[in-house]
Amino acid sequence: MSKPYVIGIDMGGTNTVFGIVDARGTVIASNSIKTAKHSDINDYIAELHEEITRLIVANDAVDKIHGIGIGAPNANYFTGMIEYAPNLPWPSPIPLSELVSKKFGIPVAITNDANAAAIGEMTYGVARGLKDFIMITLGTGVGSGIVVNGQMVYGHDGFAGELGHVIVKRKNGRTCGCGRTGCLEAYCSATGVARTAREFLEIRNEPSLLRNLQIEDITSKDVYDAAIQGDKLAKEIFDYTGTILGEALADFAAFSSPEAFVLFGGLTKSGDLIMKPVKEALDKNILPIYRGKVRLLISELKESDAAVLGASALGWEVKPLQA
Amino acid sequence: MSKPYVIGIDMGGTNTVFGIVDARGTVIASNSIKTAKHSDINDYIAELHEEITRLIVANDAVDKIHGIGIGAPNANYFTGMIEYAPNLPWPSPIPLSELVSKKFGIPVAITNDANAAAIGEMTYGVARGLKDFIMITLGTGVGSGIVVNGQMVYGHDGFAGELGHVIVKRKNGRTCGCGRTGCLEAYCSATGVARTAREFLEIRNEPSLLRNLQIEDITSKDVYDAAIQGDKLAKEIFDYTGTILGEALADFAAFSSPEAFVLFGGLTKSGDLIMKPVKEALDKNILPIYRGKVRLLISELKESDAAVLGASALGWEVKPLQA
Repeated sequence: MSKPYVIGIDMGGTNTVFGIVDARGTVIASNSIKTAKHSDINDYIAELHEEITRLIVANDAVDKIHGIGIGAPNANYFTGMIEYAPNLPWPSPIPLSELVSKKFGIPVAITNDANAAAIGEMTYGVARGLKDFIMITLGTGVGSGIVVNGQMVYGHDGFAGELGHVIVKRKNGRTCGCGRTGCLEAYCSATGVARTAREFLEIRNEPSLLRNLQIEDITSKDVYDAAIQGDKLAKEIFDYTGTILGEALADFAAFSSPEAFVLFGGLTKSGDLIMKPVKEALDKNILPIYRGKVRLLISELKESDAAVLGASALGWEVKPLQA
Repeated sequence: MSKPYVIGIDMGGTNTVFGIVDARGTVIASNSIKTAKHSDINDYIAELHEEITRLIVANDAVDKIHGIGIGAPNANYFTGMIEYAPNLPWPSPIPLSELVSKKFGIPVAITNDANAAAIGEMTYGVARGLKDFIMITLGTGVGSGIVVNGQMVYGHDGFAGELGHVIVKRKNGRTCGCGRTGCLEAYCSATGVARTAREFLEIRNEPSLLRNLQIEDITSKDVYDAAIQGDKLAKEIFDYTGTILGEALADFAAFSSPEAFVLFGGLTKSGDLIMKPVKEALDKNILPIYRGKVRLLISELKESDAAVLGASALGWEVKPLQA
């Protein structure tokens, strides 16, 4: 490959983080800008161009960028558009791929954050060499990226892989941000853990360190802190969360029979507190023909780099610009 | 393509049906033998060879067979083996692909029945031209074949696409043949419909034509016959079945965002009785970004030909024999 670098851009509602990445997944240099600073998308693109160009020049990477990969909420790989963007300050749809490639003169590919994470794991992370795996991102929400036979599953419209919105409680499920009830995301995200904490504290009477906190302010981090101090209720919150996730993974296996699930995000840092019940529920609930064949892996990418790395990996797959 | 025909073999526990098929999906000739007649698999293969050769000769197809495709329970595309075969009279694993290709001197590919059905729909049926769809076969069991980006999803081990064993009732679910409880198959297969009938008749007190039958002998056909005579309870059984199926399909959409679900099998003959609640539950439960984008199709392949056609379609994809 004649051009040795790619640019990864992770576009969030608050910050846009970007970096220059080499073929081995080293982030050569990175920086960020505030996403919502500009009310006109063209001003945002201009600042992004200015800052990234500064990085490129400072790192002797002029004319060495193979492509730009962007991970953004609801970004569509096929159309290059952000189709719905409730958290961005500009009207949708946004022709992001076109805007960026015109400004930079470099080919661009975009996809949503969870798909970018999956491509990142496949290119630089624990999923290297795996042809069939499912990435699950456990953050504020629950996202997923599915790889089948070495290829990202985009679906006919570019929106495949919304496993955070598979229904895990058909009756009396929690309301979800998507407008429905009972989604996996409402239970197994960081906010889901906090909701479970509030539910358990209200329904039950046992003592718990969590009772020292304002109930409406409890976060998944608080639950973790209590659990590692031996708090029984906090541990049960992780058991409950992990069991629901493991049961869901068992169902997902019946779809694409992956060789691994790759988990990523803040919740995985709780270690065995969450991974043990996930593994137990997965083993217990999986169809016998898959049993013992599916590995449960945790991303090894540094969390601060992961989003940029994931987006950058897509930069290797861009199609050349039309002359 | 120099050789204009393929052979399709549908291997069931009772009968093995086979036929010569052309590129347009016309079954030129077909016949069947009893699967369980021979206690030695080699005798079975010998009879299959004799009968198929007879068909080939009678139809002027000698040296015109591109490949042989076989659909069989738990047949593995990657290994060419039947790995577990509780319904077949021979010990597993069975190296079916090798046995048949050696005997016939023609390349062979095998897969399970539901995958064969999906390939058949893609090659000759309602899924022609579709690159992303999910086939659901509603028979004695519930099977599935998933096509992503024009390719069959086999998974890392060849066993992907067991959507009949996704859990639809997490608590107090019906026992399933797989040894677990609450599987889709336990509700939405023909036997599932019969089980629902028995449950409803026991739990409820309303009059129903079904009460004229021996409760343990009721079949899904009986429920259909009662429903078209206007029997309210029988209609509710279809509503219940269709709603569970539609809810499950809504979840499946979140995986691969297919442009269509293709339903096949006896239950689809119940027409609107089953399809209306399926469609309603699908529309109601699907994630908003997919709403209105997923078509619900019914196979148009003649049921008597469908299994052979499906298997035969795989015959176009075989790799040439090693010299």
